[in-house]
Amino acid sequence: MQASPDTHHLVVVGAGFGGLQLVRDLAGAGLRITLIDQRNHHLFQPLLYQVATTILATSEIAWPIRRLFRERADVTTLLAEVSGVDADGKRVLLADGGAQPYDTLVLATGARHSYFGRDEWETFAPGLKTLEDATTIRRRLLLAFEQAERETDPATRQALLTFAVIGAGPTGVELAGIIAELAKQILWREFRNIDTREARVLLIEAGARVLPAFPVSLSDYAQAALEKLGVEVLLGRPVSDIRADGVTIGTESVGCRTVVWAAGVAASPAAAWLGIAADRAGRASVDANLNAPGRPDIFVIGDTAALMTADGKPVPGIAPAAKQQGAHVAKVIRARLAGKTAPGPFRYRHQGNLATIGKSAAVVDLGWLQLRGWIAWWIWGIAHIFFLIGARSRVAVAWSWFWTFISGQHSARLITQGRKAPERKP
Amino acid sequence: MQASPDTHHLVVVGAGFGGLQLVRDLAGAGLRITLIDQRNHHLFQPLLYQVATTILATSEIAWPIRRLFRERADVTTLLAEVSGVDADGKRVLLADGGAQPYDTLVLATGARHSYFGRDEWETFAPGLKTLEDATTIRRRLLLAFEQAERETDPATRQALLTFAVIGAGPTGVELAGIIAELAKQILWREFRNIDTREARVLLIEAGARVLPAFPVSLSDYAQAALEKLGVEVLLGRPVSDIRADGVTIGTESVGCRTVVWAAGVAASPAAAWLGIAADRAGRASVDANLNAPGRPDIFVIGDTAALMTADGKPVPGIAPAAKQQGAHVAKVIRARLAGKTAPGPFRYRHQGNLATIGKSAAVVDLGWLQLRGWIAWWIWGIAHIFFLIGARSRVAVAWSWFWTFISGQHSARLITQGRKAPERKP
Repeated sequence: MQASPDTHHLVVVGAGFGGLQLVRDLAGAGLRITLIDQRNHHLFQPLLYQVATTILATSEIAWPIRRLFRERADVTTLLAEVSGVDADGKRVLLADGGAQPYDTLVLATGARHSYFGRDEWETFAPGLKTLEDATTIRRRLLLAFEQAERETDPATRQALLTFAVIGAGPTGVELAGIIAELAKQILWREFRNIDTREARVLLIEAGARVLPAFPVSLSDYAQAALEKLGVEVLLGRPVSDIRADGVTIGTESVGCRTVVWAAGVAASPAAAWLGIAADRAGRASVDANLNAPGRPDIFVIGDTAALMTADGKPVPGIAPAAKQQGAHVAKVIRARLAGKTAPGPFRYRHQGNLATIGKSAAVVDLGWLQLRGWIAWWIWGIAHIFFLIGARSRVAVAWSWFWTFISGQHSARLITQGRKAPERKP
Repeated sequence: MQASPDTHHLVVVGAGFGGLQLVRDLAGAGLRITLIDQRNHHLFQPLLYQVATTILATSEIAWPIRRLFRERADVTTLLAEVSGVDADGKRVLLADGGAQPYDTLVLATGARHSYFGRDEWETFAPGLKTLEDATTIRRRLLLAFEQAERETDPATRQALLTFAVIGAGPTGVELAGIIAELAKQILWREFRNIDTREARVLLIEAGARVLPAFPVSLSDYAQAALEKLGVEVLLGRPVSDIRADGVTIGTESVGCRTVVWAAGVAASPAAAWLGIAADRAGRASVDANLNAPGRPDIFVIGDTAALMTADGKPVPGIAPAAKQQGAHVAKVIRARLAGKTAPGPFRYRHQGNLATIGKSAAVVDLGWLQLRGWIAWWIWGIAHIFFLIGARSRVAVAWSWFWTFISGQHSARLITQGRKAPERKP
């Protein structure tokens, strides 16, 4: 049964982890919900790097949003790009000129990569947030080997066989590890003019250690594991320039044709839409119930909200944090609709940090327990399979991993979309 | 062991079914082989329509060419676009200005769709030959439903919910069947403003029946099966115009925003490269050993060669025909290198025609046996799984089909690559 038009109308912008959790937790709450996203799919971003590095297929980590809510007659899914919020008029503005009125609004619009004011770097160093980002990186990675195979100039060939990952958080570490495995263990038997084992994989980090969010002992282990795979870990060395033909690390210029950006993120413009204060990363200031200041009808959650933990550290921009915020706002909305007192302030419960290094090592930090090596790898793998949506994806991803494990081959080594497919004119 | 530079050098252009079969059959023949393709992957084209219609993922039907020959030190794979042949200088010319000398050349460059001189139709009615074609069609198909959900003008909405497939050969029949299933059985529960079951799916054919290569009884069965799925089969009615907002069928104009072209193919320009005679579809005239006239060192095989069967009909442009030609040329080359008499002329052995209509009906024509219904569907499915390359793909495709079968859901319903990923403004 679809809700009647005078039912309280909740508009949720963004079908990431936070937005989905919110909508799920509001099942049966008697609302009319409109879920807007500029993509038709929810994306399991924690495994996006495996699409970029040829292990998983795009459809294994993405699900049509409408299918997720097909049984929920109270939920209308809208594929549209939001361009702003008319908070006084209680309307979400759409890029195509339309508008969507709301009674309550939740902005869960996430983050994009940030180039610290050097936006011109994006052309040469794509980040990793969307399926298109992942297939772009996959294409560049594979094309570099192909071009090196045909290149006769030694310096150009060396630059084609040099891969730089900038930023040594979990994404950077995971990317560098698999790129090294690809070059040094998988591809070398397939080329005749180059030895891909001679490829350089640079992991460049301005800070003092890899995985700065982890305990030092796990950072040290991760670094050693990366170096064992052949990754050159360059610490305390910020990148000062990125060009088509190379990167400058501090003052040293390195010829390099493939660069991936895993260094910084900036929130989506939710704070700007609302005209409210934002932190340096553009994340909107919200109160303890995730309400925008002075706007009890507007919530901001996930990567685009600025929040502190009980011990004064920023809430990390990871899936569990977004999910907890979505769940909290669902409780607040339910309480308000029922005329009850809202639950206490949002409290972030950190469940742990996980990262993999190649296909047999990983680090797990649960706070009360630190693990490394193959046991951590299994915990990492099982946790990720568990959090995927639906039996189909779980089987498909498990099969892709199993196959990679037993065959040593990656299953999605496709160069696609390099040239523009013919596009119809409007 | 890599062969020495003075070994006989065979250049094969195109890693489709014919080119792959040829290279495989020349294992251990003592040649130095260079396999050139403008893509890094071999594509299993018979299932490409299932990528276009959201059933399979791209990586399930495509394999990196170099991986297929990684154990073959005699084979060098080259990702490059060929722009011509210097037959007197015995060199293949590359689009980037390079050239590849050969002792023997095999052109297995396949076909693209042909718009019968109306190339401007391609913008509105993409064909289905590459992975990009398939993801383009998938995107348009899914976007049409999304736009219809938001459209308020009834005529525009009806045009968005009208899908035209032009050409009722196996590809057209297969596309129309699955599009009808998507609209009428799968998507309808997910939309709130439209009833996707009201979508029109038109299969437009200039000829007198669907599947003209099959016996009349199977054509009739296929047409009935399509109509049961809700496809409107329009026979004997050529398309006279295709525009952004519709198609004209004969003299009748139909508002329609999604059109797929499955009507005609034209050979790649191999004949033009060689300056030899071609038939109406651009296919090169070759002799009984698939040699270009007067060029014993150049062979043309597959969809780009014009050949007749023993009973005077053209050899069809299907995978088994290309494979048989690749195998034949391998035998001819081996015989010549050994100084033996070449085998007799190439004879095409027709193994049969198969086509599916939706997810439970199919037609199989083996000449001595005609089958229809679910038993034909199982034969079709098992045959296609069998011909996929490698255990991984067989399991992955079988799993995707199994999932579609038991859940009624398609697993690759992604809209990607529609526009550039949103760039963050400074």
